[in-house]
Amino acid sequence: MAIEVLVLLLALAGVLPAESKFMVYNTSAGIDPNKLNVHLVPHTHDDVGWLKTVDQYYVGSNNSIQGACVQNVLDSLVPALLADKNRKFIYVEQAFFQRWWRDQSETVQSIVKQLVHSGQLELINGGMCMHDEAAPHYIDMIDQTTLGHRFIKEEFGVTPRIGWQIDPFGHSAVQAYLLSAEVGFDSLFFGRIDYQDRAKRKNEKSLEVIWQASKSLGSSAQIFAGAFPENYEPPKGFYFEVNDNSPIVQDDINLFDYNVQERVNDFVAAAVAQANITRTNHIMWTMGTDFKYQYAYTWFRQMDKLIHYVNQDGRVNALYSTPSIYTDAKYATNRAWPLKTGDYFPYADRANAYWTGYFTSRPALKRYVRIMSGYYLAARQLEFFKGKTTSGPNTDSLADALAIAQHHDAVTGTEKQHVANDYAKRLAIGYTEAEALVASSLACLVESTANKECGNPTTKFQQCPLMNISYCPPSETVLSNGKDLVLVVYNPLGWKREDIVQIPVMTDDISVHDSEGKDVESQLIPITEAYHKLRSYHVKAYLGRNAGGTPKYWLVFPVSVPALGFSTYSISRAQGTGARPTKSSVYTVQRGENSVVNIGQGNLKVAFSAEGKITHYINKWRTESVEQSYSFYAGSNGTEKEPQKSGAYIFRPNGSFPISPAKQTPLTVVHGSIVDELHEQINSWIYQVTRLNKLKEHIEVEFIVGPIPIDDGIGKEVATQISTTVKSKKTFYTDSSGRDFIERIRDYRTDWNLEVNQPAAGNYYPINLGIFMKDEEKEFSILVDRSVGGSSLSDGQIELMLHRRLLLDDSRGVAEALNETVCVENKCTGLIIQGKYYFRFDQLGEGARWRRSYGQEIYSPLLLAFAEEDKNHWRNSRTTSFSGIDSSYTLPENVVILTLQELDDGNVLLRLAHLYEVGDHKELSVMTSVELKKLFPGKKIGKATEMSLSANQERAEMESKRLVWKVEGSAEEKETKVSRGGPVDPVKLEVELAPMEIRTFIIELVQLNNLFDA
Amino acid sequence: MAIEVLVLLLALAGVLPAESKFMVYNTSAGIDPNKLNVHLVPHTHDDVGWLKTVDQYYVGSNNSIQGACVQNVLDSLVPALLADKNRKFIYVEQAFFQRWWRDQSETVQSIVKQLVHSGQLELINGGMCMHDEAAPHYIDMIDQTTLGHRFIKEEFGVTPRIGWQIDPFGHSAVQAYLLSAEVGFDSLFFGRIDYQDRAKRKNEKSLEVIWQASKSLGSSAQIFAGAFPENYEPPKGFYFEVNDNSPIVQDDINLFDYNVQERVNDFVAAAVAQANITRTNHIMWTMGTDFKYQYAYTWFRQMDKLIHYVNQDGRVNALYSTPSIYTDAKYATNRAWPLKTGDYFPYADRANAYWTGYFTSRPALKRYVRIMSGYYLAARQLEFFKGKTTSGPNTDSLADALAIAQHHDAVTGTEKQHVANDYAKRLAIGYTEAEALVASSLACLVESTANKECGNPTTKFQQCPLMNISYCPPSETVLSNGKDLVLVVYNPLGWKREDIVQIPVMTDDISVHDSEGKDVESQLIPITEAYHKLRSYHVKAYLGRNAGGTPKYWLVFPVSVPALGFSTYSISRAQGTGARPTKSSVYTVQRGENSVVNIGQGNLKVAFSAEGKITHYINKWRTESVEQSYSFYAGSNGTEKEPQKSGAYIFRPNGSFPISPAKQTPLTVVHGSIVDELHEQINSWIYQVTRLNKLKEHIEVEFIVGPIPIDDGIGKEVATQISTTVKSKKTFYTDSSGRDFIERIRDYRTDWNLEVNQPAAGNYYPINLGIFMKDEEKEFSILVDRSVGGSSLSDGQIELMLHRRLLLDDSRGVAEALNETVCVENKCTGLIIQGKYYFRFDQLGEGARWRRSYGQEIYSPLLLAFAEEDKNHWRNSRTTSFSGIDSSYTLPENVVILTLQELDDGNVLLRLAHLYEVGDHKELSVMTSVELKKLFPGKKIGKATEMSLSANQERAEMESKRLVWKVEGSAEEKETKVSRGGPVDPVKLEVELAPMEIRTFIIELVQLNNLFDA
Repeated sequence: MAIEVLVLLLALAGVLPAESKFMVYNTSAGIDPNKLNVHLVPHTHDDVGWLKTVDQYYVGSNNSIQGACVQNVLDSLVPALLADKNRKFIYVEQAFFQRWWRDQSETVQSIVKQLVHSGQLELINGGMCMHDEAAPHYIDMIDQTTLGHRFIKEEFGVTPRIGWQIDPFGHSAVQAYLLSAEVGFDSLFFGRIDYQDRAKRKNEKSLEVIWQASKSLGSSAQIFAGAFPENYEPPKGFYFEVNDNSPIVQDDINLFDYNVQERVNDFVAAAVAQANITRTNHIMWTMGTDFKYQYAYTWFRQMDKLIHYVNQDGRVNALYSTPSIYTDAKYATNRAWPLKTGDYFPYADRANAYWTGYFTSRPALKRYVRIMSGYYLAARQLEFFKGKTTSGPNTDSLADALAIAQHHDAVTGTEKQHVANDYAKRLAIGYTEAEALVASSLACLVESTANKECGNPTTKFQQCPLMNISYCPPSETVLSNGKDLVLVVYNPLGWKREDIVQIPVMTDDISVHDSEGKDVESQLIPITEAYHKLRSYHVKAYLGRNAGGTPKYWLVFPVSVPALGFSTYSISRAQGTGARPTKSSVYTVQRGENSVVNIGQGNLKVAFSAEGKITHYINKWRTESVEQSYSFYAGSNGTEKEPQKSGAYIFRPNGSFPISPAKQTPLTVVHGSIVDELHEQINSWIYQVTRLNKLKEHIEVEFIVGPIPIDDGIGKEVATQISTTVKSKKTFYTDSSGRDFIERIRDYRTDWNLEVNQPAAGNYYPINLGIFMKDEEKEFSILVDRSVGGSSLSDGQIELMLHRRLLLDDSRGVAEALNETVCVENKCTGLIIQGKYYFRFDQLGEGARWRRSYGQEIYSPLLLAFAEEDKNHWRNSRTTSFSGIDSSYTLPENVVILTLQELDDGNVLLRLAHLYEVGDHKELSVMTSVELKKLFPGKKIGKATEMSLSANQERAEMESKRLVWKVEGSAEEKETKVSRGGPVDPVKLEVELAPMEIRTFIIELVQLNNLFDA
Repeated sequence: MAIEVLVLLLALAGVLPAESKFMVYNTSAGIDPNKLNVHLVPHTHDDVGWLKTVDQYYVGSNNSIQGACVQNVLDSLVPALLADKNRKFIYVEQAFFQRWWRDQSETVQSIVKQLVHSGQLELINGGMCMHDEAAPHYIDMIDQTTLGHRFIKEEFGVTPRIGWQIDPFGHSAVQAYLLSAEVGFDSLFFGRIDYQDRAKRKNEKSLEVIWQASKSLGSSAQIFAGAFPENYEPPKGFYFEVNDNSPIVQDDINLFDYNVQERVNDFVAAAVAQANITRTNHIMWTMGTDFKYQYAYTWFRQMDKLIHYVNQDGRVNALYSTPSIYTDAKYATNRAWPLKTGDYFPYADRANAYWTGYFTSRPALKRYVRIMSGYYLAARQLEFFKGKTTSGPNTDSLADALAIAQHHDAVTGTEKQHVANDYAKRLAIGYTEAEALVASSLACLVESTANKECGNPTTKFQQCPLMNISYCPPSETVLSNGKDLVLVVYNPLGWKREDIVQIPVMTDDISVHDSEGKDVESQLIPITEAYHKLRSYHVKAYLGRNAGGTPKYWLVFPVSVPALGFSTYSISRAQGTGARPTKSSVYTVQRGENSVVNIGQGNLKVAFSAEGKITHYINKWRTESVEQSYSFYAGSNGTEKEPQKSGAYIFRPNGSFPISPAKQTPLTVVHGSIVDELHEQINSWIYQVTRLNKLKEHIEVEFIVGPIPIDDGIGKEVATQISTTVKSKKTFYTDSSGRDFIERIRDYRTDWNLEVNQPAAGNYYPINLGIFMKDEEKEFSILVDRSVGGSSLSDGQIELMLHRRLLLDDSRGVAEALNETVCVENKCTGLIIQGKYYFRFDQLGEGARWRRSYGQEIYSPLLLAFAEEDKNHWRNSRTTSFSGIDSSYTLPENVVILTLQELDDGNVLLRLAHLYEVGDHKELSVMTSVELKKLFPGKKIGKATEMSLSANQERAEMESKRLVWKVEGSAEEKETKVSRGGPVDPVKLEVELAPMEIRTFIIELVQLNNLFDA
């Protein structure tokens, strides 16, 4: 009550600046059905890092780069809203809001809660950041949205109603159907769509649509979606930040320059212009832009006056509004809206300005984010198995770092270098804590003490986050006498898994055993000079120390790991006649010698020409011609007439140049019992390994690219091409945020007649999972290890852009060239990236199985933990094999666990995802079901409540509130029935999943016994 | 009570942003006698017009020129102060404060009153603006200070304690002793003194002094005066406006970039550096600058933290302070301070950057301000005589316009052109209202209805503000039959006055009579082509219409007018043999002809050489050789090494060039019974009239200068030189703000060894009243009609700078070249100025009489009002002669009435000023006295309360509070007794005035009878 009294007092007293003008403005206007309604939506757009780091933006430091302080925004907002109950504001970015919230006194918190409940302050979008829609993986999008939404729910008891993706550079299907419709949003608004598309939509009044973005979920996951006519700023002349230039409303007749009528006329003219491209008598003005409202009152003062005088004028009706009010007003008109399918990629803001460069920009950061994403998923599983504790390491810091990294200037690569460093630093800190948690959880599990207050297990597991540069101190050690290297291999997937592990070792004098002491076949592959160089340079650069003794071999061996569980292997000094690893046979071939090279020990073999070029893909079904090559685009420096440069955002090539392998460099061929490899030095800065292992029927290409040379003054964007005989007819498919595949047709857009001005850049699409093409016989698919840009620029061909190094800024605000370097002792060289992609041919109709299943394995690699222990003691006293699910059970092949996480209240957040779309696969694109009980062996499910995707409201409640929009021209009968899993029987607890369905549950476990007592 | 409760509630509740950080900062530090005390003085410096107009600055419009909005400052200040009672702020410029105040609700006003009473908000300096100290006349300085101080007294009951002249470009003696000590200030602070002076003072710790600026009033009007070490901004790195670049204090350990210790170290280092050049353990940090605190909280947030952490650190003591607290702390140390006499002119901020150009910049505006100043003095007298009414025209608007025009970027000429136009517009509006008041008051007086609710007199007087360009519609009319032109001549001085009036007429067929019908001798002087051109062009330019029929003559005749009163003259169509004006004899002389020209009908004659150059000044005492010439300085465009340009502020000449009269142009000589003139066209853009009238023994030089040609790409600064045989020994005297004269020595400064780098610019001084020099026999004085810059650049010579037109900006912020133009139908030509100066020789010791007496006549010219009436009817029914003082009385020759003004409460504000300094004149530099009763004939003085100069407190109270400072090295016995008038006997009501004394009274008139009934 005290607060209510206080708020009332404040409002009455008018001590706050809003009332300082003795004149009282009438700001109470609501909607007038008989007039054009101008919805003034006060907002600020606060990038969670861009030119400054998230913390710098929050506290307002580093202002020489950009004058921006979010603390000011939120601080000044509270009194401005209190001063007039008609004023409204939306706040979007929870990363900032939460920083602010924890600084506030209880009194301020109470007041803000009142403002939220009264609707004056509406928290919309509600994720930690406004994530990008091209570079993030959908699991990260869900996680970061959940983090924000659950905070809002817990603190305020409300659920955000509106998707507000106003700045991301193009818009994904997954954003529309999954991160909007499936989280219960009533609408989705955004600012950036292709300039040609926008022109047509303005002309046809179709900026506002019903977006059905999922083929599989169709109208069950559609959303009202509005693209803004220009951007997310106010109309020209209506900017009112401190020191902004727009004419203020001067209504004091005692002073000079009285301009009320003039400003009212400007307002009406701008409103009518927008009404002319908008359906219904409702238009929205986004009253704000980046980091505005630092002194919130400056905006409200002017908006108060505009509402007052415009409504006095009477030609149009101006009102304080929010996107929710606007959405409800649109809905109330009961109109039908145009239908939109697919997505809004790629984005060009004008001719020759395709924002498709950022699909690849900062490939190392993109890979780091992806690794952390998969690790976070696994770590939460292990955190749950161990039992979440408030003390000790946990996954919260990694969750926060990952959430922030999804921002549309984070994983996108469009931030300044120091900000990219900040994201990486946050991930590293988060990882370090999660790594400790993982080590501790695995230790508890092996010591069988999990869920028994397992605070201080004795086993000290080490992990190897730098394995990719062959740096793994625990496996490089010379084993003490009597000690073995114990390797715990954890599988985060819900299926049993057979895979190969590969670790660096110092010696060939070793042997590998499984947990029962049986010999395990293994192979040693010499570590080549290219990797030695990577290792020594980057250990120095990133750890600041010498890498130490150089491991000689990769030790490779197959492992078998249960679902959501681990197996244990041990590596010992070889003794007597025990099984030792086979050494690979290695030989070199001079390019151009009249010989053909074949590799492959399993079902798949690959033939290379004498030039080192792959020529054939051979398995038992087929022999396919295939070629692979590298090229680079020269980054455009712009011309006088068309000054657009290629940069962090924009891919604007000035010619494409093939990279031919240097003739004199030999090929190195590695044959072994498990893995075959072909190593090539393509040129002085590209190294490639083509790898086959006998367990898998796909080709793995590992590339090391960089430092891209720039001493010729030319920025370069490096691509690789794979050409096949697939008769793709201009058509290819790329995933939407790692989930649904969307058909792409070269030089074509579904929604308008494309005027082609950038034949390469304008056909690039974001790839998170993979890209494929097909003809009447076969499918050819590529899967990637991070988000990249790619296309099919000629029939049968697929191109991936792997790395970019540019010398000029592309004039979209970042004001830095995308020229990443790595430094040792102040000497910097261009960034070297290393990574992998995978490709494979399938029979038509069969490709989805590999793309979905193996795609999931790429996302969730086996997690390796090392400990030096006595092998026999270990076997006798430790749990050497574990599965988190019932040992009799496995998840259906078409289902994965997206989330298995213990919440702070002890309940469990579980997300199950069907991996297949309607039509993907004849056996797998079907309704499937999961037995929840089997997922929690040793525990009893008290209650399983189905939730919205972001777990901030019950699914049933969300569905009951869903607005039912009319789609233009769609008669009832035309609508096809959408398949969805049915309600979950509280006794049987079986969860049905239709294709592409993701279902989210909060599970209450009433009896939390130790796993091992069950 | 309601308010107190509310303020308490607010403070407790912490709803205001200051409390938003849940952390509580300890900001309660007071003075610690054992530490270095860093007084943080939060302030904003709000120019009352500069790059934007005063209204634009207030409302925050025209932000493309400068982001500045005073409304934001004051609006945001209130909650910021409420939120923490330790926070303090000073506000200075009442023009802004009053605009804001009248917008506030009663609630806010009550809160602000509390803040003022608690000392959190201190109103200092307190004039309407921070007036300049070179270009304004001291009467204007007093008036504008009074306007602000009385408002503060009336609204808040407080009197400002501190002079805060932080930005003006040099500092005057009058500011120190009159506008500071005499208004009761305890100290005076400023930011700009000569860079050489500053360096020496820092070295000697003598930035803080006791300033005895008046020779006459000495220690009775001294003040503690502090020059800042750098400017009026915070130390580098402590700027905290929204979007400022200084590092904020990041004290949240949950975020990156925690920097508390670093910032504390920065703070301590800056404090110690300042302490090293400052006496005592108190230093002041001016925490703010131009138009800062737009979101006041941004500063207080950081200062809260700094105070908290610096005091935690403990090396120095930081506190919220005000200049009052600082002054009291200095005083409490009981130290002696260095003595400073004279003033701080001229100001150079570095070598070759003398701010002496602005002494002359915008000479037309400077003249306009001076005319309005004199008019305002007269108008208030007439307003009092009539009786002030709330309805109908009054002088308030002119008072406000004049006050604002004294700002240090107004009359200085250092504002942008559009802002100069705004000042002129305000003066014009104010004048128009005052003109109506004057007409109405005179009408009431002539109709004998004054003080009898004289609302609608029938007589319609017209006045001629454009008389200077020979435009005077009422005198140019062709008289209707039977009508005469009645001319009322009002004399604002307290002495009877004999003078010449000069009005344009259409015909010679006229005669002039006094109020008794007697013929008055008169003379007609043909109006020359130069004036016709001035008239037609400027009437078109400023009134937007054709000037109409061209008057042929100046009608000149002597008038005699009583003290504070008027006489009436009539101009009739000549009838029969009645006295007609004598026509002047006019002849031309070719330059170079072998003849000498003499003019002068009275005691003074002037001889000219054949070249048209004045050669001799001849009166009955002496014949003096004298020469007069013109020259121009080429404005420097800067060099690569020394880029300083000549501009609005800075006079940096690049060579001086004589202007020789064109040989072919004839001289025109005018002889008449009253006035003799010599007209010369000096060159195509300089025209000069040298004029003598038989009543006066001085030479009047009227000049028309412009448009200054710039087609050669060279900016020019036009000067005139008068050379005599005075053996001035480098020494000359210039007035301080029109009051005391200060000795100047060429290439010399009293306070330090001057390093001369600008021999002309560095010897320029501001002149408001006049300049003189002397030797053992004689004095040579020049009086001016506005503020100008001048010097004596060689012995016996005096130079005045008359006009400046420059093509480049001088990089002091105004960002415009001083290139004034006047436009007709979009065709613009360089500004033409017209004006006068006067010179005279006197016996040594006698010069002061002319300088003081005639100087007062220049300031207060006769006020002319015209009406077309029947002469006989007029004489019979109208009051034709009037004096506002007792007819038996005249003011002593050494006293003037500075102010005679009816206040809103009906009381009268009276200021009497002794005109002479100690030593000026053997008879006049003495104690004198005024009988107050004689000043109010027909009225009875109920009470006469002596007040401080700005009339905001009783003089006795002010004296009782005065701090008594110790002066270094001054033993008691050395102090000479200062002469001051004694207390006023309430019965006798005689006011003693010592030399240079100004005494201010509020007079209650208990019986306000009609003047004419007495």
